[in-house]
Amino acid sequence: MANPGFHGVFPYLVSPVDAAGEVMTDVLARLCEDLIAAGVHGLTPLGSTGEFAYLSWPQKQRVVETVVGAARGRVPVVAGVAATTVADAVQQARALERLGCDGVLAILEAYFPVPDEGVYAYFAAIAQAVSLPVVLYTNPNFQRSDLGLPVIERLSRLPNVGYIKDASFNTGRLLSIVNRVGDRMKVFAASAHIPACVMLIGGVGWMAGPACLAPRQSVALYDLCRRGAWGDAMALQRQLWDLNQAFARHNLAACIKGGLELQGYAVGAPLAPQAPLSAEGREEVRRALAAVGAL
Amino acid sequence: MANPGFHGVFPYLVSPVDAAGEVMTDVLARLCEDLIAAGVHGLTPLGSTGEFAYLSWPQKQRVVETVVGAARGRVPVVAGVAATTVADAVQQARALERLGCDGVLAILEAYFPVPDEGVYAYFAAIAQAVSLPVVLYTNPNFQRSDLGLPVIERLSRLPNVGYIKDASFNTGRLLSIVNRVGDRMKVFAASAHIPACVMLIGGVGWMAGPACLAPRQSVALYDLCRRGAWGDAMALQRQLWDLNQAFARHNLAACIKGGLELQGYAVGAPLAPQAPLSAEGREEVRRALAAVGAL
Amino acid sequence: MANPGFHGVFPYLVSPVDAAGEVMTDVLARLCEDLIAAGVHGLTPLGSTGEFAYLSWPQKQRVVETVVGAARGRVPVVAGVAATTVADAVQQARALERLGCDGVLAILEAYFPVPDEGVYAYFAAIAQAVSLPVVLYTNPNFQRSDLGLPVIERLSRLPNVGYIKDASFNTGRLLSIVNRVGDRMKVFAASAHIPACVMLIGGVGWMAGPACLAPRQSVALYDLCRRGAWGDAMALQRQLWDLNQAFARHNLAACIKGGLELQGYAVGAPLAPQAPLSAEGREEVRRALAAVGAL
Amino acid sequence: MANPGFHGVFPYLVSPVDAAGEVMTDVLARLCEDLIAAGVHGLTPLGSTGEFAYLSWPQKQRVVETVVGAARGRVPVVAGVAATTVADAVQQARALERLGCDGVLAILEAYFPVPDEGVYAYFAAIAQAVSLPVVLYTNPNFQRSDLGLPVIERLSRLPNVGYIKDASFNTGRLLSIVNRVGDRMKVFAASAHIPACVMLIGGVGWMAGPACLAPRQSVALYDLCRRGAWGDAMALQRQLWDLNQAFARHNLAACIKGGLELQGYAVGAPLAPQAPLSAEGREEVRRALAAVGAL
Repeated sequence: MANPGFHGVFPYLVSPVDAAGEVMTDVLARLCEDLIAAGVHGLTPLGSTGEFAYLSWPQKQRVVETVVGAARGRVPVVAGVAATTVADAVQQARALERLGCDGVLAILEAYFPVPDEGVYAYFAAIAQAVSLPVVLYTNPNFQRSDLGLPVIERLSRLPNVGYIKDASFNTGRLLSIVNRVGDRMKVFAASAHIPACVMLIGGVGWMAGPACLAPRQSVALYDLCRRGAWGDAMALQRQLWDLNQAFARHNLAACIKGGLELQGYAVGAPLAPQAPLSAEGREEVRRALAAVGAL
Repeated sequence: MANPGFHGVFPYLVSPVDAAGEVMTDVLARLCEDLIAAGVHGLTPLGSTGEFAYLSWPQKQRVVETVVGAARGRVPVVAGVAATTVADAVQQARALERLGCDGVLAILEAYFPVPDEGVYAYFAAIAQAVSLPVVLYTNPNFQRSDLGLPVIERLSRLPNVGYIKDASFNTGRLLSIVNRVGDRMKVFAASAHIPACVMLIGGVGWMAGPACLAPRQSVALYDLCRRGAWGDAMALQRQLWDLNQAFARHNLAACIKGGLELQGYAVGAPLAPQAPLSAEGREEVRRALAAVGAL
Repeated sequence: MANPGFHGVFPYLVSPVDAAGEVMTDVLARLCEDLIAAGVHGLTPLGSTGEFAYLSWPQKQRVVETVVGAARGRVPVVAGVAATTVADAVQQARALERLGCDGVLAILEAYFPVPDEGVYAYFAAIAQAVSLPVVLYTNPNFQRSDLGLPVIERLSRLPNVGYIKDASFNTGRLLSIVNRVGDRMKVFAASAHIPACVMLIGGVGWMAGPACLAPRQSVALYDLCRRGAWGDAMALQRQLWDLNQAFARHNLAACIKGGLELQGYAVGAPLAPQAPLSAEGREEVRRALAAVGAL
Repeated sequence: MANPGFHGVFPYLVSPVDAAGEVMTDVLARLCEDLIAAGVHGLTPLGSTGEFAYLSWPQKQRVVETVVGAARGRVPVVAGVAATTVADAVQQARALERLGCDGVLAILEAYFPVPDEGVYAYFAAIAQAVSLPVVLYTNPNFQRSDLGLPVIERLSRLPNVGYIKDASFNTGRLLSIVNRVGDRMKVFAASAHIPACVMLIGGVGWMAGPACLAPRQSVALYDLCRRGAWGDAMALQRQLWDLNQAFARHNLAACIKGGLELQGYAVGAPLAPQAPLSAEGREEVRRALAAVGAL
């Protein structure tokens, strides 16, 4: 892409899997089609919301094939790589490139704490294994490792490490990253941050589960931010925020799958032993969707 | 309050105490004078930066008398109340009112975890003990209790609980509060948040230690935000952020006292066993101050 | 003390305070008398269970005077010193010595994290301020600082730092301390450890709230351990453990005060905003006390 | 086994993997042979020390085949099952039974928090999938889920859930489990507990990495505990404890692999991005092994 690069609204896609463990490709393809029609700027299978931690490799492959097939080059597909070992991560990244992805979202799983040198080695190996742009992903809420500023800076000097998506609740940390890596790396928000705030401080968009449920409204918010219409942006943002809050209170996959079911996508429940969205959670999501006209 | 109420930049004041335990009132009064001349909108003695947890009551009293005397009604003085028991908190709040404070910043110290009912009772008792406006203060990083949204909402219905200052790193939580309490409670940022972001989402200002060191620049940032000049605001904000980062990396009181020493205020070191700002920390603060023209 | 030093069962005493804030000295003195009659080896006012974090200095003074007066030299009184500053800690320790205590239990309160050098300085200053034996106290569950092994070792080289009481849940840490400090420092268990296990690894006794409620049974357990009757000790220990578990599930002071009320000591409730023991908690404590014949 | 069931010393085996990702079966078989000769009571491949979180399924299979083949029925082999989904766990457990294991060690991996009902469902499904005895494994230090007492009690009522291995640092919790599940479930210690203490409170042995490095000494300790020779047991325990401490300070797999290299087993390094044992760590392990005559 001799171009603006990844930017805008990238919904984290769910991974619909039936009771027999088969990926339900029809509903996934339809969801992708509808999201593209709604104006989203990219698609991100195999994020947290996509239950990457709960899928086998064949299931992951099937999800990615489906999404790449549905996208037909209209928007970039950035799929998640997640592993505990360097060897496994490199293998996954290469496979995703062969499957036609436009970028990889690099996630470090860890059982034992990983020292900085190991964190660097892991992400650097992924970057070197593919010719695709790499998005660093950090989620200190669910992961046992974290990316510190010095490691982020080192990684930003690798040619194809161009983006970072931070899923902490610490928005100030994003400004610290922006200040530190300058133009070498672009920042995406996650659902734990207020997207309008991240746009204000120099972010280029957001990768988030709730954008699956409110794609039109998310794109509208992005456009307002890009135009600098901050007052209008905040008015819309305040409405949309309730959806992010519901998302934070429940199992992410259960929340988005539950919301999609309300919208008529039969994506099923998250994989056991995760529980489906509770009745109370469904009601919360229903209210949040209705309030933004997404139901 | 037939008025705008508290708003703008409220520097958290340090508490200069000499080796004999005496409050150094001259340097404190001079600091207050200079901050007011720099345009700050209020003064906040006995916050975290003011080492409330390290001072005896006579020392606290002396600090507040000095600040009230220096302010001479030109800006409001909002002083910290911090206790583990309701009885002690009520006594402190009443004493602060008698000393001429314009508001109290209510802090709950805890040794054992406090259930929500106790948290509510504590803050409500303070509010009922005085006729002053009360600012709720929550700092989950250093405190063993926290204010959840339902308790905040209940407290917002008390007539003189008009403000909240949240010192978590979670900026999204502030928007959740704004969405929940509407006009009943106004939100102040703390140094862990990006002030420009908090202004964007509806905040009314910030209470923070770094504003002691860069009052003019902080006031300029506030004015840009108020005028909706978000681009210029962010340019200034990005420069100022390094100071907040230095602040987060060190003992807060040591950092601000160390910075003030660099600026010619002989405020001394934090009370032992806290250590003075390290040489490395001093260098970091010096660079951050020089970069914003505050040295 | 040309003698074995502190050893055995030291109940943490509650601090009975009435609604007006007055220490209820009669019931406290009676409790001390009954505990001594039950065979306890010492008395420890102003520990966690004694709500040291919730009392004013005059209240603390009154508690200690009462306990020292009731003990009449029959068992040692080891009272808590707890402060955030070195200066305050030194003042408290000296006052306790003047009040006739036989030892001090040194507790470091902290608002900001304290580096090791500050931790050492704090405890060393207390030791140097008095001629009494000092018991180091560490409770990482409720305190914002902790004592690492290297600091403990350094402190063990001070002549009157002769004991440590560790209130973590990590019993292995106690063996690490025993291995490290050898004969220079003796180890007391806390209610979070299994006393019989700590005796097995070389401990000299325990300081704990539940011993207030089951002093005879605690002393019997201590005697069995001392005689090496480990089988009988464990049979008794298993029964007594339910009381420690109840203690861990509730506010410590509420639990012991609630239990004492069941036994006929009108010690009242913990200071607000702490809540009295819930009905469910009272039932749990009643069952645990009945099971060991302490009701 | 119409018999005493699992008991005694079960070393957690390392998983030696070469640079090409091949399991080094020769050195693994030799280690198993030597451990059996040293008197261990069972072998446990695919625990934390065995890097279960870092191996592919084919690697795991190869490890288990090698261990079962080396054991030749002389001691039971209890292999780890670890998954995020119920479906994967059931598949693994069945495969381990087919491979000839004598028991499974059931581990719940989680990305999102798992409510109690899901925790129960996960372990119950494993138990129902096999006819082998199941050992529940809980390690709150490295895992994102935990087994609470009520869930443990429910699981203890399943016929083949006969054991629990708790790797927290909280020894008191083990006594709570013993008190709660009575004879229905037997307790194994882990390296974070003092084995002699766990034997005292009714445990039946320990499953731990350090037993790979000091099998003879571990078996001797077990025998002393079984004979009730607590004084001699503690003398040996105090020496062995330094090894557990070294283990706790480093990456577990790196520590045991590093120690085995010192003993002449060419088991290599842990899988990248884990780092090999540092020079300092190696020295620490060398000292600890020399002190107990294991070098």
